Amino acid sequence: MLVTGGAAFIGSNLTDALLKRGAQVRIVDNLSSGTLENIQEHLDAGRVEFIEGDLLDPEVTRRAVEGMQVVFHLAADHGGRGYVDLHQVECSTNLILDSLVFKTCYEQKVEKVVFASSGCVYPNFKQTDPGEIVYLTEDAVGPPYDADHIYGWAKLMGELTLEAYCKQYGMKSASCRFFTVYGPRGVENHAVIAMIARAFLEQNPFEVWGTGEQIRNWTYIDDIVEGTILAAEKIDDARAVNLGTMERIQVMEAVKEVLRYTNRSLEIATQPHMPTGPMNRVADNSLAKSLLGWEPQVKFFDGLHRTIDWYFKNKKREEVQAIFARMLTER
Amino acid sequence: MLVTGGAAFIGSNLTDALLKRGAQVRIVDNLSSGTLENIQEHLDAGRVEFIEGDLLDPEVTRRAVEGMQVVFHLAADHGGRGYVDLHQVECSTNLILDSLVFKTCYEQKVEKVVFASSGCVYPNFKQTDPGEIVYLTEDAVGPPYDADHIYGWAKLMGELTLEAYCKQYGMKSASCRFFTVYGPRGVENHAVIAMIARAFLEQNPFEVWGTGEQIRNWTYIDDIVEGTILAAEKIDDARAVNLGTMERIQVMEAVKEVLRYTNRSLEIATQPHMPTGPMNRVADNSLAKSLLGWEPQVKFFDGLHRTIDWYFKNKKREEVQAIFARMLTER
Repeated sequence: MLVTGGAAFIGSNLTDALLKRGAQVRIVDNLSSGTLENIQEHLDAGRVEFIEGDLLDPEVTRRAVEGMQVVFHLAADHGGRGYVDLHQVECSTNLILDSLVFKTCYEQKVEKVVFASSGCVYPNFKQTDPGEIVYLTEDAVGPPYDADHIYGWAKLMGELTLEAYCKQYGMKSASCRFFTVYGPRGVENHAVIAMIARAFLEQNPFEVWGTGEQIRNWTYIDDIVEGTILAAEKIDDARAVNLGTMERIQVMEAVKEVLRYTNRSLEIATQPHMPTGPMNRVADNSLAKSLLGWEPQVKFFDGLHRTIDWYFKNKKREEVQAIFARMLTER
Repeated sequence: MLVTGGAAFIGSNLTDALLKRGAQVRIVDNLSSGTLENIQEHLDAGRVEFIEGDLLDPEVTRRAVEGMQVVFHLAADHGGRGYVDLHQVECSTNLILDSLVFKTCYEQKVEKVVFASSGCVYPNFKQTDPGEIVYLTEDAVGPPYDADHIYGWAKLMGELTLEAYCKQYGMKSASCRFFTVYGPRGVENHAVIAMIARAFLEQNPFEVWGTGEQIRNWTYIDDIVEGTILAAEKIDDARAVNLGTMERIQVMEAVKEVLRYTNRSLEIATQPHMPTGPMNRVADNSLAKSLLGWEPQVKFFDGLHRTIDWYFKNKKREEVQAIFARMLTER
């Protein structure tokens, strides 16, 4: 099996799980956001094959996909909210990347493609009121469509392209719409890890982008990995399925729990002018339940505590200090 | 200047016009729909540089774009209605093509990019009732969006990508939304040329896809070429502008004029089950008027007569016979 982007946060966790199940795994990664550290143990043990390369190069893509039975396509030019909003040109290269990977999968007769799609495919216009209880069901995507910046559009195009391959040529695939994943190996450009980093650095005042009223359904990495593997096993027809919890968490609630759990008493400063993304994004996960038998196992506060423990145990103050400001809008 | 797809219908006509104005022109074309015949005169006279190659190969794209001041990006995996509906996988490669061409233009410091976009970016839901008088203005595209098959989505992604390059990096560009172009060098997978070919072959009964009630604003090639060059001269800010007439022509009306002008008395057989595209697609062209000083010069019936004259003068019965059935759904 191939994991594209397998040296990064989600990809390396997926690789761990696939290896545990006895799969033979090849990773392709350009190390733009992934690190060798994330997969070092497997590299040292000779448990994975690793190709360092850029999937925008058709020759790299061909080499990576050749001979694979299943392709988990997770690689993307991707960052957190600051990156997705301010680097749309860079995100537009995902249009090349995804279509090229799927074309190559078809040419190389891959049996199953699993695509890391995103909650960013959902219409902006359904996610504006944090006071409204909305659970996004898969069919809410469109038409008409209104995806979240070019990053979201590229994910949507990936889904539509896989549907076309399935309909026209019978290529089997599944699209997993990940919702704001967090957990060990996460990086500071995503909200939860950024909060933890601020507490770690004892940033005072502790900055919160937006008013803090935004609602999210942060979903723990182990649950995402489990759902992705189930999708590979059980979906053939290019269907898209939400992988996300139905816990509605307010940003400010998460901030306060981070401060409580880390024993920090810091002043909170909201920054309403900074990018926030949609005000209200929460998945409905009943399709994943019925189709995959999947349900998230990790409650947000539990996952948050685990992630804080991991971060505080593994990070060095001066290293975080050196990268933190840049990471908020970069990758 | 570079014309991608410069050996095909629109590209070769654009090349003629650019050469007449004294431009130095390079063409890149993979000859998938273009032919050397379309540019033979210029090749023989050494008036154009020609690269035969596939723009999905980043090395070909780099070689083609290198050193160019203006890039007219017309190349696409594209056919008529039958192709666009039934070959969505093939059209999805335009997502690779367009993003790669624009990325390369940015890297190679091209001064101006002019993109052949399409009426296919307009929402399907605004084009359903042939009895309704609707002129599509540029701002009708979205959000929310509802483009016409993956072909239309790819064109829309091209526009959004150029907007991002303009906003983030100041790269100058214009998107021209072509509406159902016809004229000399057109091919049989497009409706007007297909009608002419049926008359040429004396097909009896003369088949019409759909009920014949569909409304289109067929726009003559010379007008399209003129508007495209004006856009190159006058638009810098990645704006999209309609290039299309405001003549509302019913398919059946066009069919009858083809039969009248060619002196054919053939029975007409509508085929309601065949792909028709939207029922009512007509541009508003007031933005092109105010921004470019452009107005279409060729009335539909005049352009139709010129195109029929060209077709009947240049085509051989056995050659048309050999390709016609295939061309309706292929390219």
